[in-house]
Amino acid sequence: MSPDALEAALRAIGAERYHSLHPFHQLLHSGELTRGQVQAWALNRYYYQASIPTKDAMLMARLPSAAQRREWRRRIEDHDGDGDTPGGIERWLKLAEGVGLDRALVESAGGILPETRFAVDAYVHFVRDRTLLEAIASSLTELFAPAIIAERVSGMLKHYDFITRETLAYFTPRLTQAPQDSAWALAYVRSEAVTLEKQAAVLAALRFKCDVLWSQLDGLYYAYVAPGFVPPGAFVPDAA
Amino acid sequence: MSPDALEAALRAIGAERYHSLHPFHQLLHSGELTRGQVQAWALNRYYYQASIPTKDAMLMARLPSAAQRREWRRRIEDHDGDGDTPGGIERWLKLAEGVGLDRALVESAGGILPETRFAVDAYVHFVRDRTLLEAIASSLTELFAPAIIAERVSGMLKHYDFITRETLAYFTPRLTQAPQDSAWALAYVRSEAVTLEKQAAVLAALRFKCDVLWSQLDGLYYAYVAPGFVPPGAFVPDAA
Repeated sequence: MSPDALEAALRAIGAERYHSLHPFHQLLHSGELTRGQVQAWALNRYYYQASIPTKDAMLMARLPSAAQRREWRRRIEDHDGDGDTPGGIERWLKLAEGVGLDRALVESAGGILPETRFAVDAYVHFVRDRTLLEAIASSLTELFAPAIIAERVSGMLKHYDFITRETLAYFTPRLTQAPQDSAWALAYVRSEAVTLEKQAAVLAALRFKCDVLWSQLDGLYYAYVAPGFVPPGAFVPDAA
Repeated sequence: MSPDALEAALRAIGAERYHSLHPFHQLLHSGELTRGQVQAWALNRYYYQASIPTKDAMLMARLPSAAQRREWRRRIEDHDGDGDTPGGIERWLKLAEGVGLDRALVESAGGILPETRFAVDAYVHFVRDRTLLEAIASSLTELFAPAIIAERVSGMLKHYDFITRETLAYFTPRLTQAPQDSAWALAYVRSEAVTLEKQAAVLAALRFKCDVLWSQLDGLYYAYVAPGFVPPGAFVPDAA
């Protein structure tokens, strides 16, 4: 496969498997969820957000050059902040507070679904245990992020009276960070995946990552939409 | 906590969280699933069965005495067989073939749900990464197994004309193996978890394992019962 053919195959995976196609996302951005269901989404998704710097630190530890590590360190700064400008984790906490969740509950990851924990931990372990090329390829869902963010933000602002532009401030920097991240990762994958075996591994890594995102929405849909069986010990929204 | 109080707390976790309480189990044993839904269960559950000896080998590698390792080795023999008598994995393949699945598909774990893979892998990683005491405690769901097996076997034989006693032969030895396994593990936990901290870790390990089992049935219910959204790439039963 040429680099262009590989990139086309990667983009085809996104077109088939990215979580923008999941029914929970459709409900979320079209205004069909209750506030309690949006809370469940924000609570669970925090665990993913909070785990991203762990994943990125594991990956960065294996990058051989200072230039590459600086590139990857930027991702960690984006999430952890610099002490002045709040990072993505802090902004997600604001989002969670904005939809009415207690900050301490969210930070404790108490009440998250087992599906969330297992999927997110699987991602961290994948990046730790697989090749550097596969680890970098698994980040390529960011190629597809700007479209879902645009849809999510405009839909949520339009449809939910409990959501403000300030609450969704998490997403604004992501619109520029994600393309910057994915451009670098895509160039790396295009230049390094030069055998059929490596190309197959790269495609499988992106499919795996799509599963990680999809599975989190499966868990939310199952527990909080239909049939609505909240697993023992998981967050129960206030009846309202 | 005294050993008796610890045991009571462990049994209370089972009473609240064991997957016998999951709606998918209720549907399975009461005859309300289609053959395709039972196939999805058998296919996914195979991945769990096939991973158990890996988990047990990781645990056994950390047991310090030959006597303890012999005890744990029996579990691996139960699953892998001795070359003459088929083990649990081979018996599960018979079950899968008995409900109409292709053996090669099942063995490849092709088409299993991401939820299955993430939950089962989380279990293997837990046993690898946590303390020996927590690893042993996570096996204690076997305390609750005989009741669910009895319910499952009698219910499935009664309600499904495509299920025979031979198909369910997997479960027969489990009725004696599980109590033998869990008696040893329970005695170990009762004698080793002698501080509050260790007792809390033991209880958390059993809760974690209940989540592993529960989450697998969540995935099956979500994909194959209601709302019935099969994730991209997962097994799709023949319309029949």
